[in-house]
Amino acid sequence: MQVSLQPGQLLARGVARHLARCGFVSVEEFVPSRGLRVDVMGLGPKGELWGIECKSSRADFQSDSKWQGYLEWCDRYFWAVDMAFPTELLPEGSGLILADAYDAEIVRMGPEDRLAPARRKAMIQKFATHAARRLQAFRDPGVAGVVGVSL
Amino acid sequence: MQVSLQPGQLLARGVARHLARCGFVSVEEFVPSRGLRVDVMGLGPKGELWGIECKSSRADFQSDSKWQGYLEWCDRYFWAVDMAFPTELLPEGSGLILADAYDAEIVRMGPEDRLAPARRKAMIQKFATHAARRLQAFRDPGVAGVVGVSL
Repeated sequence: MQVSLQPGQLLARGVARHLARCGFVSVEEFVPSRGLRVDVMGLGPKGELWGIECKSSRADFQSDSKWQGYLEWCDRYFWAVDMAFPTELLPEGSGLILADAYDAEIVRMGPEDRLAPARRKAMIQKFATHAARRLQAFRDPGVAGVVGVSL
Repeated sequence: MQVSLQPGQLLARGVARHLARCGFVSVEEFVPSRGLRVDVMGLGPKGELWGIECKSSRADFQSDSKWQGYLEWCDRYFWAVDMAFPTELLPEGSGLILADAYDAEIVRMGPEDRLAPARRKAMIQKFATHAARRLQAFRDPGVAGVVGVSL
């Protein structure tokens, strides 16, 4: 699978590894609400939810018109980019992660804007559902034909 | 992976497929509390938590001294057994699922004993963490060496 990863997915992998080191778990391509898809959603030991968008190039960033829609679905929001990315393009005041395919580092913490308890509860259940459904598809490829679960 | 599944794991696979048909997601070998390991934990669309123990034989059932400890960690509890299992051995009043490796059917619904909200919240977060950690190990086998994540 790794051979076919796109540049943004390689960044996401490094980000997920770093989050794991920080005691967070994460899922990729999380859908908090219809029409939105966050590259990486991290879940911390106290139920913290961090949204991270991975941008592999200037064009990748400039074509994203949805990122402000992610803010209301997480406690902190970050951009993840590689060393070559022109970080001056990124909006001030959002979190910044420098990443490659193998690891990442939080350069600037995203400001905290805590979710309301009801939304946090709904998001964590959605996170659990997302992760378990994809895990099942890995563990039991035969389930796809049964219920339309896919990766 | 499938070739090495044990009889109990084959039942768990069938149970997980049936749960998926019912709109539940599930994880296997879930640890609600230190020293306890539930074969399958299902999570429903409204946050329902169902614990299911898979018993492949009379001996497998009779060697289980921990099952009553699972009751306090789920809303409903079930046994999952195959067609050959002598179901008269099972305690009356617990749920019963007939399963094989490919599917399952709920024969008797486990009685409901709803979790307190704080425990449900903690369990759903633990479920999310369990599922996401194992999913990451499938998606990125390289993460194991980084943070000790394993399947």
